[in-house]
Amino acid sequence: RSLSTTARKSLKIGLIPADGIGREVIPAAKSAIEALGSDIPKPEFIDLLAGWETFTKTGNALPHETVDVLRNECDCALFGSVSSPSKKVVGYSSPIVALRKELDLYANIRPVLSVASEAGQKAAVDLVVVRENTECLYVKQEEQIFTENGREARATRLITERASRRIGQMAFEIALSRPRKHLTIIHKSNVLSITDGLFRETVRKVPTLPGVDGKYDSVTIMEQLVDSAVYRLFREPEVFDVMVAPNLYGDILSDAAAALVGSLGLVPSINAGDNFVMGEPVHGSAPDIVGKGISNPLASIRSAALMLRHLGYIKGADRLDTAVDQVIREGTTLTPDLQGTSSTTEVLDAVLKKI
Amino acid sequence: RSLSTTARKSLKIGLIPADGIGREVIPAAKSAIEALGSDIPKPEFIDLLAGWETFTKTGNALPHETVDVLRNECDCALFGSVSSPSKKVVGYSSPIVALRKELDLYANIRPVLSVASEAGQKAAVDLVVVRENTECLYVKQEEQIFTENGREARATRLITERASRRIGQMAFEIALSRPRKHLTIIHKSNVLSITDGLFRETVRKVPTLPGVDGKYDSVTIMEQLVDSAVYRLFREPEVFDVMVAPNLYGDILSDAAAALVGSLGLVPSINAGDNFVMGEPVHGSAPDIVGKGISNPLASIRSAALMLRHLGYIKGADRLDTAVDQVIREGTTLTPDLQGTSSTTEVLDAVLKKI
Ligand SMILES: CC(C)[C@H](C(=O)O)[C@@H](O)C(=O)O
Ligand SMILES: CC(C)[C@H](C(=O)O)[C@@H](O)C(=O)O
Repeated sequence: RSLSTTARKSLKIGLIPADGIGREVIPAAKSAIEALGSDIPKPEFIDLLAGWETFTKTGNALPHETVDVLRNECDCALFGSVSSPSKKVVGYSSPIVALRKELDLYANIRPVLSVASEAGQKAAVDLVVVRENTECLYVKQEEQIFTENGREARATRLITERASRRIGQMAFEIALSRPRKHLTIIHKSNVLSITDGLFRETVRKVPTLPGVDGKYDSVTIMEQLVDSAVYRLFREPEVFDVMVAPNLYGDILSDAAAALVGSLGLVPSINAGDNFVMGEPVHGSAPDIVGKGISNPLASIRSAALMLRHLGYIKGADRLDTAVDQVIREGTTLTPDLQGTSSTTEVLDAVLKKI
Repeated sequence: RSLSTTARKSLKIGLIPADGIGREVIPAAKSAIEALGSDIPKPEFIDLLAGWETFTKTGNALPHETVDVLRNECDCALFGSVSSPSKKVVGYSSPIVALRKELDLYANIRPVLSVASEAGQKAAVDLVVVRENTECLYVKQEEQIFTENGREARATRLITERASRRIGQMAFEIALSRPRKHLTIIHKSNVLSITDGLFRETVRKVPTLPGVDGKYDSVTIMEQLVDSAVYRLFREPEVFDVMVAPNLYGDILSDAAAALVGSLGLVPSINAGDNFVMGEPVHGSAPDIVGKGISNPLASIRSAALMLRHLGYIKGADRLDTAVDQVIREGTTLTPDLQGTSSTTEVLDAVLKKI
């Protein structure tokens, strides 16, 4: 799954902190990457705009320049988080949803891992949510009509065989790379027999695609309705290994899984396509804590690690992950979301010392 | 919210156990109702068919007769649970979804309450999910087309002002009846600005409707995106009192909340409209434990209590709820889902003794 590993002289990384605590945690991830020295090609960072504040200033939440630079100049990117308006605002549309689509980043990969209390011990929660990232209700085809009974709004939920197949392939690859090799297909085909029926059936058929040739024979395939998946996630998270889900279910499931490991502030993700990868912490812009200097930088640093791993820089990725794990395990330098009393900077410094 | 309380000589209750453990728990609820004696009008039960097995025998998962009898002869009903086929089957469609629509049972009310370890103590989780029950993706308008890139399926998500308003009114009434009077509107309007925007805005406007006249001034209104609502539900469930949600989010949220109180086997619901009410345990048909005699009857007995309460039979409802609470609190006669070793019949007998 790694993108081309042809030797790069430098690594061009777009930085899109966007809104809220995105502006606190993305700079922290940048410092962590810089600390890797020669384990990765020399990083070059390019600051890019997006988000609600960008919208209020320019009328566009995702300036064309941001997309152009990412597409033409960057090897990868890190995205922070976006605030959304508290009411509907004409012309505003979520820049992260748009970016995923513009760059065809069709897989949102969200590993959720509780840190074992001792090194070498088994983690209680160790799963990956593989979320389809380009369709479902996120196609944002919505309309509203006026009737004699009042307004009626409709949204389209799109599920295609093509997108289901490629996310299915990604999920099988990830399952294959893990010790347990379990894949659970999440759907609600008892209600959505056609759309979720297509998703489920297409993912199930991945092992029979031409050229696969028994490669996935060792992967166990299971299924779970989305409602009971959330229930089981809380009752017996250990049953899950890799979960593959249409966009909206994946969104909800990854937040649910994050709750299991103590904080959204720990959960990283990448948005991956065939030609580009963008790291993104799963947490939001957290307007309630902006500017207090207490946002948790660990999800962003882990997102940087995931991004580097996806690009083939395993050693650099391992160093970031190991440093984060050590800081969590020691438990003395943590932000308040993890019941600690440290600041963003103190946590970053603790990580930098371990790198 | 109670349905007409004009004195009834008898109470005609439709029983639709449907599939799986529905056939074990609905008879238990029937016995519990019978034990109430003169606290309710003499119950008369009418057995009705629906479900997957009915489909395999008759080609129709919801026979017309079932709907006719419910509509024309019954005061209320109890529904068990349905199994769904493991593959798409032409002509099969979920009977519970159809029943909710046929009888216009527009509100699915799901109280989730952990039992305090001692009587009189405050429960750790005490919330009600008020789920819109007739639209959203459950309108089941789906289609599939064939393109040169493979199949493409689309489903329509419908949100109307009318349905959002009536579920909003129901939710405000329920919030008003509770000590904390908090109402959280669940949506995802950062992505679905038109459909979820309409839901959110319409519910918010309920207090300004003509005739409301300040009635809801004491209700605090909050909002939460559905993904972070699931996260917070696990991290700090005590922040929630009443949650009002479009259909699919409500489905997922009520399973999530059920996980907090130990078992889906405890969580009841009613499907309520202006003219009819149908109790329904939130759990499914549980094919893995069918026939073992260990299904938990408590959710169904609580659903019967909710149904009776909705009809205005407060004393009968209280007696059922109190008996169930006592059995849970004693903790000696519980089914395996609650780490007990008792059978369905033993738990039912324990409840009957307390009634
Ligand atoms: C901000 C929002 C549009 C986004 C999503 O729903 O995808 C977020 O919740 C996420 O999970 O990345
Ligand atoms: C069986 C299924 C159609 C149903 C639903 O999704 O409404 C169930 O999950 C529920 O919560 O009652």
